Amino acid sequence: MEKVKGTRDFYPEEMAIENYILNTWKSIALKYSYKEIEGPILESADIYKSSGQEIPEQTYRLTDKSGRELVLRPELTPTIARMIQQRKDLSRPIKWFSLPRCFRYEAPQLGRTREFYQLNIDCLGSESMLADAEVIATSIDIMKAFGLTEKDFYIRISNRKVLQSLIQQVSQSSTREIFRLIDKKDKLPEETFLFNLKELGLSKDQVERLLSFLAISQIDKIQMYCKDMLGRQGYEELSSLWKYLEQMSLLAYCRLDLTIMRGFDYYTSTVFEVFDSNKGFRAIAGGGRYDDLAGIPGVGYGMGDVVLQLFLESKGKLKKLPKQKTIYLLYIDEALYPKAYKLAQELREVINIEMDIMKKSIQKQFEYCNQQGFPYIILLGDDELKKQKFKLKDMQTGKERLMAKAGLIKFLTSLE
Amino acid sequence: MEKVKGTRDFYPEEMAIENYILNTWKSIALKYSYKEIEGPILESADIYKSSGQEIPEQTYRLTDKSGRELVLRPELTPTIARMIQQRKDLSRPIKWFSLPRCFRYEAPQLGRTREFYQLNIDCLGSESMLADAEVIATSIDIMKAFGLTEKDFYIRISNRKVLQSLIQQVSQSSTREIFRLIDKKDKLPEETFLFNLKELGLSKDQVERLLSFLAISQIDKIQMYCKDMLGRQGYEELSSLWKYLEQMSLLAYCRLDLTIMRGFDYYTSTVFEVFDSNKGFRAIAGGGRYDDLAGIPGVGYGMGDVVLQLFLESKGKLKKLPKQKTIYLLYIDEALYPKAYKLAQELREVINIEMDIMKKSIQKQFEYCNQQGFPYIILLGDDELKKQKFKLKDMQTGKERLMAKAGLIKFLTSLE
Repeated sequence: MEKVKGTRDFYPEEMAIENYILNTWKSIALKYSYKEIEGPILESADIYKSSGQEIPEQTYRLTDKSGRELVLRPELTPTIARMIQQRKDLSRPIKWFSLPRCFRYEAPQLGRTREFYQLNIDCLGSESMLADAEVIATSIDIMKAFGLTEKDFYIRISNRKVLQSLIQQVSQSSTREIFRLIDKKDKLPEETFLFNLKELGLSKDQVERLLSFLAISQIDKIQMYCKDMLGRQGYEELSSLWKYLEQMSLLAYCRLDLTIMRGFDYYTSTVFEVFDSNKGFRAIAGGGRYDDLAGIPGVGYGMGDVVLQLFLESKGKLKKLPKQKTIYLLYIDEALYPKAYKLAQELREVINIEMDIMKKSIQKQFEYCNQQGFPYIILLGDDELKKQKFKLKDMQTGKERLMAKAGLIKFLTSLE
Repeated sequence: MEKVKGTRDFYPEEMAIENYILNTWKSIALKYSYKEIEGPILESADIYKSSGQEIPEQTYRLTDKSGRELVLRPELTPTIARMIQQRKDLSRPIKWFSLPRCFRYEAPQLGRTREFYQLNIDCLGSESMLADAEVIATSIDIMKAFGLTEKDFYIRISNRKVLQSLIQQVSQSSTREIFRLIDKKDKLPEETFLFNLKELGLSKDQVERLLSFLAISQIDKIQMYCKDMLGRQGYEELSSLWKYLEQMSLLAYCRLDLTIMRGFDYYTSTVFEVFDSNKGFRAIAGGGRYDDLAGIPGVGYGMGDVVLQLFLESKGKLKKLPKQKTIYLLYIDEALYPKAYKLAQELREVINIEMDIMKKSIQKQFEYCNQQGFPYIILLGDDELKKQKFKLKDMQTGKERLMAKAGLIKFLTSLE
């Protein structure tokens, strides 16, 4: 009996890490007033088709009894588009976040599992680049909340309209193929990339021109090449986004990078990635603006837990996680159980309490407490109950002190 | 583009209810020192077979590329058994809880959806009925945390060993079939139940004897019938459980009910249900002891969110949910955005802040604030920035007051 390859078991230690990630994501999304939503894990394959995308190949599929093709969602954006289209009454902006579990049927490898959690932050209904800037700001604040700085990561930002305009200046044919090739650039050896460009019919001059465009890293330098309507529009968006990021003091985290595409066909304008400065991993998060997907403009991104966790581990950021405080209540004699349980119930109003349910000897209970690392034990005997003074043992120092119930409750409250 | 039948979209309003349920479950499980775990949604079909169960019929299945049969988990217990068997090093008791999403492929109806969340609380490694009592206590505390009392629900408790012993006294043949029939008793009309018993070959006398056994509602009255080893063992367990529940002052919530079975084959001893006193719904939660499933003794239960939510709604318990407090920061002029964002970031250390990202007029922003029900608005103009005094408007009373930043932060902190 084994788990399915590429899936994960979360024992308490792994779950603590996962919860730390999920809670950090959630707290930042809430700080920016995004509201939590969730969709079905099972979606009709249609929603991936009609959103302009092929059904992703690497997807778990099944056919239901009525012959309908279902998939285990590979991502959340098409679900969000569906949910938005179903509800015309939502006031705008629609600011949503979600912590979906998604599925991808591909060979498991470092940083890629078949099941994963993903943060999604989406802002719909606003055409302004203020929305893009805010969405990017949340991704930066999340990285900072994990203890990372501008030395550890940066945001690569591009605009698809700009890139499309530039490509069209290089070549009127095969623009779609060139797009796709640029999307894969990071994963290809330089020579393969160049070879493939030539295969698409680009001359040496055209290749050089394309490479010089892709190398542009300053906003100002794009403007002169953005001559057609699409290009001008893209440039307006990009420079407006840059202005907001500057006003928000976020430019230290951001770099123009025209080579990023972010796969999905539905992105129409801004695209961006949270990227490891050391290039040790892939992108940690990615997203963009999708103005034609949901019937209203939208911008958002996804951040997966698996790559993020590897990244945080490599930076030593998962060593000291916030811990649930739990106190062990040790009753000396079985006959005291009813009173011990009553006390436990009172204390549970303020803190988590564990009691023996295995009829362990006192010695075994102490061994268990040491092993589990309870910070404090409350010792309960006849004498304590008679005097209503309770013995609290600090497991680090070994010191014990007697406390009345009110004092004990006050102390335990201060621990939480 | 529609969602798949029997699945659910959680818009912010629905998600708030779901989170209230999930958080309440979680807080009680933590209070009793259960640790959170999670397993894969995709499991090999084998784990349902080899745990003594048929693969549940009403399950979403798919075959992977290597021909292995996978299922979307219909329940968590076999996953827990698998996880326990994989790790021999876990110190005992193993007290786990989980909030899995599970799947059931059956006709959707009131209280039954194809996707649902389920609380699982499991205690493994203890043979003592103290474990069963604690597990049952958590279910009672959960119901109380939702504002329910002993008038709203009760716990039906039985023991499979006792029932098996009693059935064998009635009939040596068809005991398994009689078991299954009793499991369905609640869903069958009285006549059908009796008819089916006759079909199994029971005489009128046997049927009457069986019915008289099933009607026993006091522990003491079972003892005289529990003559064989199995029966005596079951009686010992049941009376020991009863003793603990009495010591914990929980008997007001508990009833002996020999008609409950809790479906799954893997239960070996205690079985119990949280049941609606008004019989308006099915069981709200159910579980039991499974000593042969995980290689070590175990006891636990599952509580689904769908029936629970219907139940809570019927009791008017979902009207006033704890709400995220979010403040709207209204900047009077676009030129103030950089300073407004900076202030927002400071305030986000203590509370959630929303700002315009749509370039709405001030009037439109006020309309939006009224519609969304922000409790307070901070108004930010040139004058406020110059004097570093910020205007806080109480949206309920309409009153405004000027506050220095420190005072504002202190006030906002007090809101959380």
